[in-house]
Amino acid sequence: MTPELVTFGETMLRLSPSSGERLETATSLEFRTAGAESNVAIAASRLGASSVWLSKLPDSPLGRRVTNEVRTHGVEPRIEWDDAARQGAYYIEHGSTPRSTTVIYDRADAAITTARPTDQYQEAIGDAEVFYTSGITPALSETLDETTRELLATAQQAGTTTAFDLNYRSKLWSPTEARETYESLFGDVDILVAAERDADKILDRRGTAEDIAADLAADFEFETVIITRGEEGALAVHDGTSYEQPAFETDTVDAIGTGDAFVGGYLSRYIAGDSVSKSLSYAAATAALKRTIEGDLAVVTPDEVEGVLENEGRGISR
Amino acid sequence: MTPELVTFGETMLRLSPSSGERLETATSLEFRTAGAESNVAIAASRLGASSVWLSKLPDSPLGRRVTNEVRTHGVEPRIEWDDAARQGAYYIEHGSTPRSTTVIYDRADAAITTARPTDQYQEAIGDAEVFYTSGITPALSETLDETTRELLATAQQAGTTTAFDLNYRSKLWSPTEARETYESLFGDVDILVAAERDADKILDRRGTAEDIAADLAADFEFETVIITRGEEGALAVHDGTSYEQPAFETDTVDAIGTGDAFVGGYLSRYIAGDSVSKSLSYAAATAALKRTIEGDLAVVTPDEVEGVLENEGRGISR
Amino acid sequence: MTPELVTFGETMLRLSPSSGERLETATSLEFRTAGAESNVAIAASRLGASSVWLSKLPDSPLGRRVTNEVRTHGVEPRIEWDDAARQGAYYIEHGSTPRSTTVIYDRADAAITTARPTDQYQEAIGDAEVFYTSGITPALSETLDETTRELLATAQQAGTTTAFDLNYRSKLWSPTEARETYESLFGDVDILVAAERDADKILDRRGTAEDIAADLAADFEFETVIITRGEEGALAVHDGTSYEQPAFETDTVDAIGTGDAFVGGYLSRYIAGDSVSKSLSYAAATAALKRTIEGDLAVVTPDEVEGVLENEGRGISR
Amino acid sequence: MTPELVTFGETMLRLSPSSGERLETATSLEFRTAGAESNVAIAASRLGASSVWLSKLPDSPLGRRVTNEVRTHGVEPRIEWDDAARQGAYYIEHGSTPRSTTVIYDRADAAITTARPTDQYQEAIGDAEVFYTSGITPALSETLDETTRELLATAQQAGTTTAFDLNYRSKLWSPTEARETYESLFGDVDILVAAERDADKILDRRGTAEDIAADLAADFEFETVIITRGEEGALAVHDGTSYEQPAFETDTVDAIGTGDAFVGGYLSRYIAGDSVSKSLSYAAATAALKRTIEGDLAVVTPDEVEGVLENEGRGISR
Amino acid sequence: MTPELVTFGETMLRLSPSSGERLETATSLEFRTAGAESNVAIAASRLGASSVWLSKLPDSPLGRRVTNEVRTHGVEPRIEWDDAARQGAYYIEHGSTPRSTTVIYDRADAAITTARPTDQYQEAIGDAEVFYTSGITPALSETLDETTRELLATAQQAGTTTAFDLNYRSKLWSPTEARETYESLFGDVDILVAAERDADKILDRRGTAEDIAADLAADFEFETVIITRGEEGALAVHDGTSYEQPAFETDTVDAIGTGDAFVGGYLSRYIAGDSVSKSLSYAAATAALKRTIEGDLAVVTPDEVEGVLENEGRGISR
Amino acid sequence: MTPELVTFGETMLRLSPSSGERLETATSLEFRTAGAESNVAIAASRLGASSVWLSKLPDSPLGRRVTNEVRTHGVEPRIEWDDAARQGAYYIEHGSTPRSTTVIYDRADAAITTARPTDQYQEAIGDAEVFYTSGITPALSETLDETTRELLATAQQAGTTTAFDLNYRSKLWSPTEARETYESLFGDVDILVAAERDADKILDRRGTAEDIAADLAADFEFETVIITRGEEGALAVHDGTSYEQPAFETDTVDAIGTGDAFVGGYLSRYIAGDSVSKSLSYAAATAALKRTIEGDLAVVTPDEVEGVLENEGRGISR
Repeated sequence: MTPELVTFGETMLRLSPSSGERLETATSLEFRTAGAESNVAIAASRLGASSVWLSKLPDSPLGRRVTNEVRTHGVEPRIEWDDAARQGAYYIEHGSTPRSTTVIYDRADAAITTARPTDQYQEAIGDAEVFYTSGITPALSETLDETTRELLATAQQAGTTTAFDLNYRSKLWSPTEARETYESLFGDVDILVAAERDADKILDRRGTAEDIAADLAADFEFETVIITRGEEGALAVHDGTSYEQPAFETDTVDAIGTGDAFVGGYLSRYIAGDSVSKSLSYAAATAALKRTIEGDLAVVTPDEVEGVLENEGRGISR
Repeated sequence: MTPELVTFGETMLRLSPSSGERLETATSLEFRTAGAESNVAIAASRLGASSVWLSKLPDSPLGRRVTNEVRTHGVEPRIEWDDAARQGAYYIEHGSTPRSTTVIYDRADAAITTARPTDQYQEAIGDAEVFYTSGITPALSETLDETTRELLATAQQAGTTTAFDLNYRSKLWSPTEARETYESLFGDVDILVAAERDADKILDRRGTAEDIAADLAADFEFETVIITRGEEGALAVHDGTSYEQPAFETDTVDAIGTGDAFVGGYLSRYIAGDSVSKSLSYAAATAALKRTIEGDLAVVTPDEVEGVLENEGRGISR
Repeated sequence: MTPELVTFGETMLRLSPSSGERLETATSLEFRTAGAESNVAIAASRLGASSVWLSKLPDSPLGRRVTNEVRTHGVEPRIEWDDAARQGAYYIEHGSTPRSTTVIYDRADAAITTARPTDQYQEAIGDAEVFYTSGITPALSETLDETTRELLATAQQAGTTTAFDLNYRSKLWSPTEARETYESLFGDVDILVAAERDADKILDRRGTAEDIAADLAADFEFETVIITRGEEGALAVHDGTSYEQPAFETDTVDAIGTGDAFVGGYLSRYIAGDSVSKSLSYAAATAALKRTIEGDLAVVTPDEVEGVLENEGRGISR
Repeated sequence: MTPELVTFGETMLRLSPSSGERLETATSLEFRTAGAESNVAIAASRLGASSVWLSKLPDSPLGRRVTNEVRTHGVEPRIEWDDAARQGAYYIEHGSTPRSTTVIYDRADAAITTARPTDQYQEAIGDAEVFYTSGITPALSETLDETTRELLATAQQAGTTTAFDLNYRSKLWSPTEARETYESLFGDVDILVAAERDADKILDRRGTAEDIAADLAADFEFETVIITRGEEGALAVHDGTSYEQPAFETDTVDAIGTGDAFVGGYLSRYIAGDSVSKSLSYAAATAALKRTIEGDLAVVTPDEVEGVLENEGRGISR
Repeated sequence: MTPELVTFGETMLRLSPSSGERLETATSLEFRTAGAESNVAIAASRLGASSVWLSKLPDSPLGRRVTNEVRTHGVEPRIEWDDAARQGAYYIEHGSTPRSTTVIYDRADAAITTARPTDQYQEAIGDAEVFYTSGITPALSETLDETTRELLATAQQAGTTTAFDLNYRSKLWSPTEARETYESLFGDVDILVAAERDADKILDRRGTAEDIAADLAADFEFETVIITRGEEGALAVHDGTSYEQPAFETDTVDAIGTGDAFVGGYLSRYIAGDSVSKSLSYAAATAALKRTIEGDLAVVTPDEVEGVLENEGRGISR
Repeated sequence: MTPELVTFGETMLRLSPSSGERLETATSLEFRTAGAESNVAIAASRLGASSVWLSKLPDSPLGRRVTNEVRTHGVEPRIEWDDAARQGAYYIEHGSTPRSTTVIYDRADAAITTARPTDQYQEAIGDAEVFYTSGITPALSETLDETTRELLATAQQAGTTTAFDLNYRSKLWSPTEARETYESLFGDVDILVAAERDADKILDRRGTAEDIAADLAADFEFETVIITRGEEGALAVHDGTSYEQPAFETDTVDAIGTGDAFVGGYLSRYIAGDSVSKSLSYAAATAALKRTIEGDLAVVTPDEVEGVLENEGRGISR
């Protein structure tokens, strides 16, 4: 398969007690997998973009647990297998007002932290239309910082569009470290996605979302800048024009993975040649559907996304 | 047992993933049974009406799964057993805004589709006070269309009151086919129940619910016409008088089966000799309780229904 | 361990179907333990007060099921073991508007109903800073009525502060019986906790919560009177001053045990020497967190309680 | 329904952790119902005998949990409902060599312990072909000792065959008490079923199973005496002739309820008019099938029993 | 992907209660997928052969449930999607001596029953080294009988080796019908796999397994004939030489799918160029491992298969 | 509490799919905790020895998950809390012949790997009668190698008996490394426990178990040497006398933790002052019971252990 979309990043095991139960007293856990870059590939694949996910995993049942779930949704994993390193995991306990949702990362020294650009990676990226990774990847290790840099450069050289989501994680690094890395990578990024709060807190940008997007686009010559704003929707600036997209109302089951669903939805339409405006609305609908599904993954279909866009996403058909 | 209520129709296996899970990735399913006519019989039986449910089922563990659950609630199944035919099923995935609830019927060629009036059926119907079936039954096969017609006629000849709920299902037939069949059966129907949207879309009636009910009653000489209107409650026209019943507020767990609970609640009071007005309020309370319970069945008690009517249905008693 | 808090009372097995399921059709039950006095000890222990729970239990796997769960949270059970008596239980079915939550007590003749003050009990109470029991205990048997009276007197003689929550249970006794017993115990109570509705219905007090608290404090010379008012928060009168505490907004998973969490949170701060006002807000935050957790127990940490007080109890940190 | 078989006795809730889990650390329990006399009625009903079960239950979701499960299998419960008394329960933890299976009864003061012969009971027994109760019933209370005596007498007067299984329970009474009661009831018993160890330890009989059966038959003028011998099968003496029946080999899932399945299988054939020898083999096959099923109940069909008898009970048919 | 192995056939949903539970009283079901030809492709894919599975499925969550699980194991589904037809299913209840395992097929009119050779199918088969289907496929419909015939012919013309397992299913057709069809297809089959009992009952062959294999090879000019003999192992005749392979001892969890695991293991080595003898032992080890895993699928790795062959498949490594 | 037994070591989270399921396809995991030294403390505590477990854990819900479970069984955890380090875990998939049980350790860099002797540790060890750790502890990090050495020395100086189980883990170190460390620690060990295969492979001892034990005792001046031999039982040499103890027959549910249960059972009797012979039989019975229980922990009672010793551990008492 010559992929349309290639993503590179870590995928973790996801361990969670059922809703209302606490990690410290739970006796069973739901067992899933999750990672920003495979989440994006899965959403895009399900919505029609042929997708490859690049990563490095331990050669063990745990590593295979990850590739199994990725393949389920039609994404082709191209994996560097490691005989010794560990599989990262994260524990999540769903909150409920006023109890916060708790995320405990257990990803230090995961196999991917030593990943260097391989021929396999470079070939896949060179063949693709879009290469996507997120700000989590360079935060995971110094090696990955370098690898991310090199893979983005590979893409640029090959003429592959690059998309990058800040995905700032305070448990991985400080705002200063993050900003420095982000800005050093921006030269090789075409499409930037940033949560409004990260644009503010990490990139130190103020003003309206439109101002922020326009300024970022100007400063770093991005083709497109997308600012996501939670319940207030999203905004894109592309070629000097700005596009607003409200969020769809949701009755949320699991909010984790919303941003990745948004990006996956956007890229699937970008690859299909749709307009920024059309792609944004598709992204928002995909994100809304994701919130109704347990787990990080946007287990959705194009019909369902279109149903939301046509405002038919309600009731029971029988 | 000489039954007060006899119903005839299909009961399916009901297979559903837990809330927030999707059918295409689920690894276990809740396993229940459901069917409009057994749902009605179960609700009425639990609320005091001795009830018999007539059907045709495969002579297999699956057919027995159905009769077991029906008997649980005090309804007596009188079954024609079939050595070869299949057991119908339906899959349901609960939605959450903006994701729709998905229902997949797998009921083609179920055992009941070849059911003809038997002596057992006719005797039960002749002995009963009320015979109930719904518009799903004639939609399932040509044979059942004829059988429904004959059983309604049997009831009329025996002086048994007949009740019929349109229960239009777009996955089974077109509005035109449905209307034609409905209207050809109306001559033998005493109590008609119709959702407002079906009265409109299928029977092609316009105006206020009251107008619709009154016109239908006039056109087809129904003893009673009940229009159900979802959150807006229900309305009945009987003997030229109209009765309004608001819906009770609910925190809904599972909406499937609400209409059947309404009808079962109504018929249980009709049989007890209560007024239209009293029966309507009982029906609305039964329907509200049903919505708080997983599955199609109104697993309720008379005390609970009365508690809702007395507005005590809140809080914890201890 | 020399405990700061000692509580005395019954702990039951707690058996409940999952949400949306009914007891009469359930095929599995969640299995937990619960009792006002162990709930309070567990909340206080988790929030920093070294706690002992006194009780009498059957010497069986069921009695050990109880002590196991109590120990889990750092409370030391000091138990009189009984070779023959039974273990109390309660069944709970969660409701949903308009269906009430149903509680069925099965606690008659539980081992504790024959508990008399033992040297072990008296020593623990004499050593403690606070002794707590609730109005459930004297309601369980005549023997316990006497034992409660004697243990409160023991505490008073030893200079141990006594705290008492009315916890009126209509399934155990009549308002008249309860009032008579309560008032006869008040002479040995320092801190009284009462739900507003119980102050009204059982103690026959009218007026604002502040009036009620002030009058009770005056009539029975309580050091502190706390009136709990559900969603309207709580109010304390202490030394002639009144303190108001609003309730925190919650997205409730399980309301059972809210009052015990409140008391446990309050006593943990009382023991730590905090002001009435500080302790009240801590109590309210503990109670709010409890409502987000399945089961009777406030499985919370001081950090979480403080997070709620600082209004950070929202969102996901990652 | 005019029943062929009527049984009278207690049915409890059955609470059990899954295999390999211990009661004292379990966090969920399987929830079923069980009682010797309803077990027998259920087995017989499933194998073709129309059956009624008589009992007294609390008017609560727990009492209905019991009747619901009994009705599931076609048995008609005729119940005296009690507004106040409790529902008995038992906890069972499955063992594995060398750990014993643990049974904890929690049945004291169950509603049935105050049951007196009602018109409803007496009419049902008078109409039946066989009336069955077991030695558990008179052990539960003095009232039940008398009631059992009177119901057996009622049956004898009405010409209804009486069947009685010793079912000695060491947790309920001593061997001496049991023997005295048993022997005082034997005058009204036609068919006696006794485990070999009970015949030995309780009735103080020695010798071969055949000697014991023959002596008992001679001493008390039983029509039939059946001695069950676990893996060694069973033996009956009837009219001076003895019949041996080996046990079928089983791969046991749950041994509880084996004896009741045996009796239910036997009585179903007795009622159908089959010979002692045929009925014994049917009983042994029913008992063997029961051992492969979780729970007390013999959820079997006549076809399956016959399959075992024809030695086809193996492999997969597809 | 240019596949090494291509298979064609039906994959069903597989619904089963947990062990010891009965279908007619179960309240939840495990939800998996299964089909001889996808089972074979999955086993071979996991053991190193790039595999494609051809089929026709409904375009619904149920059809996607099937492709999702097939892709999980690295097999590429190439599917003709049908907007209307149903998804086949089967119910399985695990037995335990003397209770048989019960299989209930619900596969009539599944989407695949109307499948005709498509360009996609023919291209995949033409590209492959081996094409596999089983005797279930032509039994499903007249259309499939023809399609099977044509696809085998396509393979033969393209020089693709064909493998065929009789897989006789008595619930689908009679021995006579099956034999007639089998023999008419044999001309285009290179590798025949037959259970000994089917060679006997359906093909009407007598004698030792070796005789049967040799005679079949002679009569129909098979390249290889493999006779599977359950616990007695397997035997192959190839080029006039016979090879015996004993079965590995197993502690069986789920026997369903054993034969498919055997064939998948065999073909994976055939494709890798291994000898008949080596491939047979690999097949037997794969089959033995399958029996320890719940579900139809051989979720195994080459390391595990080799571990069994080296007799290291025991104990715990830590 | 002044403890009788103090143990020091790592406790991990234990994550396992249910029996028959594979890690790479599982969707839920059982969630327990396990570690040689807490396992031993739990077994000994449950059998009557007051026990303290020393460790270092992350200050997180995962660290508390561990202490919660340890406290459940009456063991007092004395923990050095770490704000940053991770919580170790292990994944276990139960095998079935010929599939091996798979254990995947994920314990690198767990909080405990940096643990140094604290005052808290030293005080607890000084107060105790017995201090126990196993050969796993020094294998986890260089720091722990030193800490283990120092804690054993602390114990010796305080006159606390030291017990040490080799517990060789091939996934942690090589036989040569292990032997070197073991032998350097033996000077401070009083009671040595070694599996026969480890005495052979790691300590390089040959001959009968008795010879090995006697030689080791002679070479290193152990007070007692215990050789465990799986199904062949165990053998101790003490003061020049040897004691043989056969293993009890078991129907095994989960073998993990058998050795720890053995040691816990032995030490509980050693502390109670029982003879070597009595303690050995108690150890063997505890180990046998453990094998019938899911999880690492010996959730047993003294009564149950004595029941096994009196050969009553069979059947059902009711």
